[in-house]
Amino acid sequence: MSDAKPKAVVLLSGGLDSTTTLAIAKSQGFECFALSFDYGQKQKSELVTAANVAKIFNATEHRIMKISLSDIGGSALTDDNIDVPDFKESDEIPITYVPARNTIFLSYALAWSEVLDCQHIFIGVNALDYSGYPDCRQEYIDAFSVMANLATKQGVEGQKINIQTPLINLSKAQIIQQGVALGVDYANTTTCYQANENGEACGVCDACEYRKIGFFEAKIKDPTRYQA
Amino acid sequence: MSDAKPKAVVLLSGGLDSTTTLAIAKSQGFECFALSFDYGQKQKSELVTAANVAKIFNATEHRIMKISLSDIGGSALTDDNIDVPDFKESDEIPITYVPARNTIFLSYALAWSEVLDCQHIFIGVNALDYSGYPDCRQEYIDAFSVMANLATKQGVEGQKINIQTPLINLSKAQIIQQGVALGVDYANTTTCYQANENGEACGVCDACEYRKIGFFEAKIKDPTRYQA
Repeated sequence: MSDAKPKAVVLLSGGLDSTTTLAIAKSQGFECFALSFDYGQKQKSELVTAANVAKIFNATEHRIMKISLSDIGGSALTDDNIDVPDFKESDEIPITYVPARNTIFLSYALAWSEVLDCQHIFIGVNALDYSGYPDCRQEYIDAFSVMANLATKQGVEGQKINIQTPLINLSKAQIIQQGVALGVDYANTTTCYQANENGEACGVCDACEYRKIGFFEAKIKDPTRYQA
Repeated sequence: MSDAKPKAVVLLSGGLDSTTTLAIAKSQGFECFALSFDYGQKQKSELVTAANVAKIFNATEHRIMKISLSDIGGSALTDDNIDVPDFKESDEIPITYVPARNTIFLSYALAWSEVLDCQHIFIGVNALDYSGYPDCRQEYIDAFSVMANLATKQGVEGQKINIQTPLINLSKAQIIQQGVALGVDYANTTTCYQANENGEACGVCDACEYRKIGFFEAKIKDPTRYQA
């Protein structure tokens, strides 16, 4: 083994969860390669936020891949014909679910990690304060890991890929507390599904609601900039 | 159940294997949605070939998704700095391997199938006459299926996604025989890793070599158009 830091590809949207995930990967001694997607999301300002966050946490590289999920449609986050709804308690998977999004994101991370000769992928999925998305659960991540190690040259040759999900069992309040302890300034992050071009949040979508409750329960002042 | 045909998303490169796969899906009574990728491959003529094949087999829709595998690099098929090598017998995974390619392709197929309310995805992977790619093996496909059914809303709600690999245990000769029996004219397909803009094959890469041997062993005249 060399003294070089182990490498990690970190999926980074510039939101609260992925920013905290990057801070955690950094604090664990990884050399971080941040990966974001321009996937036709309505909320374009998250890419600016992500670039800023990658710089703050000194990522070796920040790559934004342009992919065309909006060609597929089927979600309020990518389809111009479907509005982002206000927050509502429900057991159903909401219309903000983007079909197979994490699978597509992790597949690109897998490809990039193989080219980088990197065996760690960090993703900020969270199974508690989430919207019921199937691709945020541990059993999904475990299945992806099994598949990933059969899919790739490095997996087959014995260099096991690890999908790291440091937030998966944390509440939003615990995520915020951990991030603050690691020096994250959440004023630099954007969580809202329909933030405006200045990165100001709507305050009424699911993502805003979970974030607000998180700051309240963490007893930390909410630094989010809301639309007037 | 309605009388409507079941739907299938069919991954289609316009090569011998994927064209045969489309013919098989069609012959099994599926309504076919063909999916191709403009992924920065050197061999652009395959997209023209794929569009033609989709039309011949009467696909309900043929979608070409533009994705940026060349941004990731690491393969002779997508990286301008790496030449496509001539055919060579070897136990090693060759430089034509594209990191995580089938995983990315299947992930998009999964997303599209969910939007289409479709439970079948056809992919023409083949575990025999192939180049040792890890993502062409049955165990990889099985692992992808498990993951896919945990990843998606329709999987979680009990509408199981089936990844169909009708060619996986066939020799190239058997694939050709089956295709000819289903009316495939292989003159309309392009297999070569570095075909020219007219779709004429190089005759020396792995893909050309396996195809040539296939026609020879099938005792069927090779209709491939080679570069002068």
